[in-house]
Amino acid sequence: MKQTFRKEHDFLGERKIDDTVFYGIQTLRAIENFHITGIPVSREPVFIKALGYVKKAAAMANMELGVLPREIGKAIMKASDRLIAGELTDQFPTDMIQGGAGTSVNMNANEVIANAGLEYMGHPKGTYEYLHPNNHVNCSQSTNDAYPTAMRIALYLKVNDLLTSIDLLQKSFGKKGNEFANVLKMGRTQLQDAVPMSLGAEFNAFATTLREDIQRLREIQALLTEVNMGATAIGTTINAPAGYPELVTQYLGQITGLPIVLATDLVEATSDTGAFVLLSGMLKRTAIKVSKICNDLRLLSSGPRGGLNEINLPQLQPGSSIMPGKVNPVIPEVVNQTAYYVIGSDLTITMAAEAGQLQLNVMEPVIGFSLFNMITYLQHAFDTLRLKCVDGITANADVSKAMVMNSIGIVTALNPLLGYETCAAIAKEALKTGKTIHQIVVEEKGYITEEQWNDIYSFENMIHPHGIYTKA
Amino acid sequence: MKQTFRKEHDFLGERKIDDTVFYGIQTLRAIENFHITGIPVSREPVFIKALGYVKKAAAMANMELGVLPREIGKAIMKASDRLIAGELTDQFPTDMIQGGAGTSVNMNANEVIANAGLEYMGHPKGTYEYLHPNNHVNCSQSTNDAYPTAMRIALYLKVNDLLTSIDLLQKSFGKKGNEFANVLKMGRTQLQDAVPMSLGAEFNAFATTLREDIQRLREIQALLTEVNMGATAIGTTINAPAGYPELVTQYLGQITGLPIVLATDLVEATSDTGAFVLLSGMLKRTAIKVSKICNDLRLLSSGPRGGLNEINLPQLQPGSSIMPGKVNPVIPEVVNQTAYYVIGSDLTITMAAEAGQLQLNVMEPVIGFSLFNMITYLQHAFDTLRLKCVDGITANADVSKAMVMNSIGIVTALNPLLGYETCAAIAKEALKTGKTIHQIVVEEKGYITEEQWNDIYSFENMIHPHGIYTKA
Amino acid sequence: MKQTFRKEHDFLGERKIDDTVFYGIQTLRAIENFHITGIPVSREPVFIKALGYVKKAAAMANMELGVLPREIGKAIMKASDRLIAGELTDQFPTDMIQGGAGTSVNMNANEVIANAGLEYMGHPKGTYEYLHPNNHVNCSQSTNDAYPTAMRIALYLKVNDLLTSIDLLQKSFGKKGNEFANVLKMGRTQLQDAVPMSLGAEFNAFATTLREDIQRLREIQALLTEVNMGATAIGTTINAPAGYPELVTQYLGQITGLPIVLATDLVEATSDTGAFVLLSGMLKRTAIKVSKICNDLRLLSSGPRGGLNEINLPQLQPGSSIMPGKVNPVIPEVVNQTAYYVIGSDLTITMAAEAGQLQLNVMEPVIGFSLFNMITYLQHAFDTLRLKCVDGITANADVSKAMVMNSIGIVTALNPLLGYETCAAIAKEALKTGKTIHQIVVEEKGYITEEQWNDIYSFENMIHPHGIYTKA
Amino acid sequence: MKQTFRKEHDFLGERKIDDTVFYGIQTLRAIENFHITGIPVSREPVFIKALGYVKKAAAMANMELGVLPREIGKAIMKASDRLIAGELTDQFPTDMIQGGAGTSVNMNANEVIANAGLEYMGHPKGTYEYLHPNNHVNCSQSTNDAYPTAMRIALYLKVNDLLTSIDLLQKSFGKKGNEFANVLKMGRTQLQDAVPMSLGAEFNAFATTLREDIQRLREIQALLTEVNMGATAIGTTINAPAGYPELVTQYLGQITGLPIVLATDLVEATSDTGAFVLLSGMLKRTAIKVSKICNDLRLLSSGPRGGLNEINLPQLQPGSSIMPGKVNPVIPEVVNQTAYYVIGSDLTITMAAEAGQLQLNVMEPVIGFSLFNMITYLQHAFDTLRLKCVDGITANADVSKAMVMNSIGIVTALNPLLGYETCAAIAKEALKTGKTIHQIVVEEKGYITEEQWNDIYSFENMIHPHGIYTKA
Repeated sequence: MKQTFRKEHDFLGERKIDDTVFYGIQTLRAIENFHITGIPVSREPVFIKALGYVKKAAAMANMELGVLPREIGKAIMKASDRLIAGELTDQFPTDMIQGGAGTSVNMNANEVIANAGLEYMGHPKGTYEYLHPNNHVNCSQSTNDAYPTAMRIALYLKVNDLLTSIDLLQKSFGKKGNEFANVLKMGRTQLQDAVPMSLGAEFNAFATTLREDIQRLREIQALLTEVNMGATAIGTTINAPAGYPELVTQYLGQITGLPIVLATDLVEATSDTGAFVLLSGMLKRTAIKVSKICNDLRLLSSGPRGGLNEINLPQLQPGSSIMPGKVNPVIPEVVNQTAYYVIGSDLTITMAAEAGQLQLNVMEPVIGFSLFNMITYLQHAFDTLRLKCVDGITANADVSKAMVMNSIGIVTALNPLLGYETCAAIAKEALKTGKTIHQIVVEEKGYITEEQWNDIYSFENMIHPHGIYTKA
Repeated sequence: MKQTFRKEHDFLGERKIDDTVFYGIQTLRAIENFHITGIPVSREPVFIKALGYVKKAAAMANMELGVLPREIGKAIMKASDRLIAGELTDQFPTDMIQGGAGTSVNMNANEVIANAGLEYMGHPKGTYEYLHPNNHVNCSQSTNDAYPTAMRIALYLKVNDLLTSIDLLQKSFGKKGNEFANVLKMGRTQLQDAVPMSLGAEFNAFATTLREDIQRLREIQALLTEVNMGATAIGTTINAPAGYPELVTQYLGQITGLPIVLATDLVEATSDTGAFVLLSGMLKRTAIKVSKICNDLRLLSSGPRGGLNEINLPQLQPGSSIMPGKVNPVIPEVVNQTAYYVIGSDLTITMAAEAGQLQLNVMEPVIGFSLFNMITYLQHAFDTLRLKCVDGITANADVSKAMVMNSIGIVTALNPLLGYETCAAIAKEALKTGKTIHQIVVEEKGYITEEQWNDIYSFENMIHPHGIYTKA
Repeated sequence: MKQTFRKEHDFLGERKIDDTVFYGIQTLRAIENFHITGIPVSREPVFIKALGYVKKAAAMANMELGVLPREIGKAIMKASDRLIAGELTDQFPTDMIQGGAGTSVNMNANEVIANAGLEYMGHPKGTYEYLHPNNHVNCSQSTNDAYPTAMRIALYLKVNDLLTSIDLLQKSFGKKGNEFANVLKMGRTQLQDAVPMSLGAEFNAFATTLREDIQRLREIQALLTEVNMGATAIGTTINAPAGYPELVTQYLGQITGLPIVLATDLVEATSDTGAFVLLSGMLKRTAIKVSKICNDLRLLSSGPRGGLNEINLPQLQPGSSIMPGKVNPVIPEVVNQTAYYVIGSDLTITMAAEAGQLQLNVMEPVIGFSLFNMITYLQHAFDTLRLKCVDGITANADVSKAMVMNSIGIVTALNPLLGYETCAAIAKEALKTGKTIHQIVVEEKGYITEEQWNDIYSFENMIHPHGIYTKA
Repeated sequence: MKQTFRKEHDFLGERKIDDTVFYGIQTLRAIENFHITGIPVSREPVFIKALGYVKKAAAMANMELGVLPREIGKAIMKASDRLIAGELTDQFPTDMIQGGAGTSVNMNANEVIANAGLEYMGHPKGTYEYLHPNNHVNCSQSTNDAYPTAMRIALYLKVNDLLTSIDLLQKSFGKKGNEFANVLKMGRTQLQDAVPMSLGAEFNAFATTLREDIQRLREIQALLTEVNMGATAIGTTINAPAGYPELVTQYLGQITGLPIVLATDLVEATSDTGAFVLLSGMLKRTAIKVSKICNDLRLLSSGPRGGLNEINLPQLQPGSSIMPGKVNPVIPEVVNQTAYYVIGSDLTITMAAEAGQLQLNVMEPVIGFSLFNMITYLQHAFDTLRLKCVDGITANADVSKAMVMNSIGIVTALNPLLGYETCAAIAKEALKTGKTIHQIVVEEKGYITEEQWNDIYSFENMIHPHGIYTKA
């Protein structure tokens, strides 16, 4: 089939466009200008969907306010619906990192919607006199309001998915918490034996800490619903009809089903990236937490003979090209690395946010790129961690119980009875001689009776100390 | 006067202590062991005050639960009151960055309170048989609950002061926003002339963006009120009497007047640093915002002849050792640098938080050190920015108005009337020939009448565009 | 065509493998286990080439030392040559971020080479009794030496390409430096007018600063040539024949043409990531420099009417979806964002490097992923900056000269003649009255004659001050 | 004694100065303007010494070139010598973080030297007509060359001290390496048992990795010797006599004894912070390394009963306020935290370096502040680590040998004899049954004889495997 072309022009000149594509001359220039990551916007379909929402809502408001003919407005709505439905994503070839504060992506959307709208109206692509990317699709808008608004909606939706993954992961930890409720183990602080606890409590703490992040992330997600539609270029609403900001916001909430609200200070809202910074910071916090958890899983499963060996991670692959039988904690390791990626990305966003100048932050594309990746990678990491690791963890109950009974740290439970200093002397002797606490305090010194020992060091009292003071 | 000494011992041996000091052997060891920053804990009086609150509340709960004799408990309360009152701060010589997860600071407080309590009881310092740092002052506690709880209270109080400073700063910006309401200026995006706005709107946006941070910071400040008192060593409440966690929390809330609540999962709470991470992230966001504002102030005051020159910052000092008459924006510059310090500190906290292991995060001292400094430095920076800069800013109204009328960007207002492409052609011609937009559209091309021009480019319409569509 | 399968097994069990693929069961497990970025190792062909080098050199040394039969060794060499030639890259489907410290990638290479070798030997894929991925391809190796060695070689080669791009960019700046040698402009410090200079000197400084980075980057690139081949698992050379480390290093140098040397302490070399950290830090430095340059280009081209307007960047695309005729500095902007990505990645590497434990750093995959991307993105950014921006920059000589002559800062040149304090008074008056320096010092005060003025403020003296002291 | 005052003025007005102080009006303004950290420049005596060097060298060159009267020049030299000798440091009260790109510090030095010079000449303080801070002390200089030059010299000298500390630390590790040469232990990768090694090799690797950093740090230290003296305001040498840049550089080298060289492109050198960025990156690398080492020390000393327990760190202080006998690795912990501080500071410097604009980087003060602290804190950390920890480490040779012989990983040594797959099966059985490798391969399966076992698993062969292939 012979390739056919149409001609398009902008104020820099005229260019030939392959007539099968829906995008136009400005997208073509973007393809030529930006070649950094090789990762096109089409890799983030939810962003394109969000652009569809924005353009549709704008068309609805413009029609109602009489600044856009109904026929044209309807075509824009139909075309936008295709984006919302996940169609035409391959028409977004612009590199994720671009200059121009998102103008190329906004124009890409304007052009694709214009040509899809023209198709709907029965006109050939490129006959912009009937439906113009700038005058009609972008009517009452600027990149500076349409682009960040789409970013916010896309991020909101992506965070929803992430929340689901975190929730499934915390449930998985919680289930293990229950399963391991009766596994006695040594608690450790500063990598030194401390006092006993149950393995269940340790896994429940993992669940708790992630549940807190779900709550925090929801609060910060809510900040994304404040948009600056109608701000146009710099927040003065230039070229937007009166009433438009409120109306387009209302329609946007309606068609997305999200609680979208209009920023009260549109000048501020147009250059502000505060919500992105806080979202990034929150994702970093979650990454830090899950990295700490993975560090713990790797510690607890270390060994098998020269480590803690309290738990077993599922065996997924031979661990070494040279050491037979070695199985490594590959899933926690890959999650750690994802966390480091996320933490690094938070810095990228920090730099970008600080670089905003005057009425705009031109670095928004790299902020979007980073946040999209952070969420995607974290979600993948959480799902992987749950399915390939946590769900299949088993406990070495005998090993960990033996470590407790053999430990020196259990002397702490005698503090209230014998005082800190006597206990310290016992501990010192145990460490020096290799004896157990039982040997010293019951057998040799007779500080307590066997019966007292059995009460104080019952499983129940070690897991949930009932406070021996009350017996005093 | 002859120096006298007392002898103290711990399980590592005996040491002589200058009998004038209230701290004891463990603090002495800390002084010897930790010598990194040279900045002692005494430099953060609010932290010592918070330790006083914690020790007092613990004593109250311990007495009520019958695990601490009334006479001893009362002495501890009296001694703690001295810390709360800001006394004895010089008795905290330990370096801010220490190993041991805060044990040295907790023991320092225990020792100072023990000796101050002994003094109150009429005993010589060091006669711990009457009032013991561990057995009595630290009763039902561990460093692992007492230390982070004191950190949280201290941070809460410091954030209060910071909030006041941010509020004063935003009010200062808001006042300038009113003062400059009628100063017309060019809005700029990507450092390129965009469309007109008022200087007042620009300054109001600074106020708005900081007001948002006050709200966010309050929300995150509230996270600090969740404490793990009674968790003792690892969250199992070992050695704390039944009911103690709830009771000590209640007393802590009572004596501090803060809405203190007990964490629901004490194991999680004992190793979790999530609130610190989020507080740090929020301080970073504020630092980013104020750094962006300072960048803008420096841009807007650039020149005086070869820059934007829209505003004048107060002249505070000769700007150059070689260039006479040069006056530099030294205050925004110092605020920028403070912001970079804060951003760097957020990374320190990130590293420290990620390094938590198993039942404790041993890196809490550097987290505290960083957060204390971040808040102090930011507060100083905000006060300086307000008093030495913002309050005294003046506008060059004529200069900035001339830039608007001479600009090309004002053609944007004609889009709805003439269409994007015609306007682009006008802009291109203006740029090429050096003509003004007025010359082209009114005088030469006659696209609009002088009357239309005066309406569209009235001050009121440029500042608050009323949307010329509605006239179409 | 019907899909056929072969069966492979490892110590975790048996799996079916599509018989058209060259990779085997361990790669299959890696595909299933690691799904974070969606970016496969095949996206980094030079890394696969480097793995070919490593496997070939190992085979050569193993043959010579008599631990690998010649026939098998020759097949490995032939198969490795295919990797070196850029073939079979699509056989590396493993996600760039993986757990296992690179074992999956090493085994992927071992399997592909084994099957390609079997093909060469005339055996069906999977008949590992003739040529085994572990026993033969991986002979005398571990992931822990083979993987980082391949990373080092790949990075070395990529840095070569980057150096070329930096060099072309600095030459482009240097060319502009010559072109603008006679363009007088105001130098600015702290965004305030300082003293005159030539635009050429400003662009030459951009060239100089990048040339310095070429030199530094070369020095750090050299650190990559130190490898730990023969270290095997942890640096003790277990399972490697005597003399192997030296011999394989020698062969590796020979076939790559690079000055490869063997680390002196193999235990240290196996866990050390210092060279990666320094390379990352150096890339960060270059990113910082080019970001600063782009900030300058955006400042210098700001306006056109309400900014500095000293230079014009090539117009590449309409700058706004709403503001006609606006053209933005999109290329510097995209380069800034790339720099922020690089700076963020340096943090990822920092975290990963710090997370090394005991005899290995298991986080090497994310280090490799980050460094590969940093280099690629930077190279793209530099090429883009050169071709789409710097090469086409033009100067507004009249504008910038007028700013100089109209400036106050030129009074500095009179310091030696009139003293700092008199000059400060002149500056103050000029600022207050709006007069030029010439008006005050020649016309009104008569401090210097017109002739003196013309000498001191000749173009030549402003660009290259000859020091008027010598005339005193 | 009654306080007396003198009056000083600058172009902003007149102020009273306490007549006992050597600094003047501009320093007074700096004290009033900058109040961020509360840490004055006087806390960094080596910086003040370096300012002395710079001012002295400038005076020498100025005299020789005839632009400074001999009598005045001699007084400046004498006064500078006092700074070099470490006197008058208390006369530098300016906050370490300031705006103005260092002008306040440079003027502080100019004023102190002027008044000290006046004292030497027999004139009262403040009689600047005889010796003027700007016209004479700052002659042929600008803050923009004098300040960064002093920073470079100060950093060079501080790095010298740091190098000494690193060297002593690596020697301490090396000594332990020798001491532990015959201690057999399990090597670990990914926290899993790998293959045997000696504890000596592990400690030698710590020494090696630090020795490499000494070499790298020396290379980067050398970059600090390139200075921009004579650049004056922006690199054009305005107001400096011909020949001055070369001459002052020569004198500076002479009086400091350092290999000072003049930058070839003074415009570039004046705004470039590349050397600081690289120094910071190098300090970060060292921090990363030592943090990794400390993580290892904490792992190796974990337990004593529920951890690896291979080594004992010196006991320095009771480890817990609640757990008797617990002793924590407090020194490695404090070093970790110092490393996090350093890593955070590197980010501060990154931000500051990227914020340079046009002909200057105004953020140099926070760069200096950060680098000074990084070096000081690191040096303290290294000395502490050596004296309080490494020097006193002891090995638990029996414990660690038992872990080796009980391990599964030692099966790796049989690979060359039995093949990877058989060994994997042995490993699997050992893991499942709890048997030792010896039990399976010698006693049960008879794969090898007792004699072979004793050879392969001799201490010597495990520590330095001789390659059993050669026996095949």
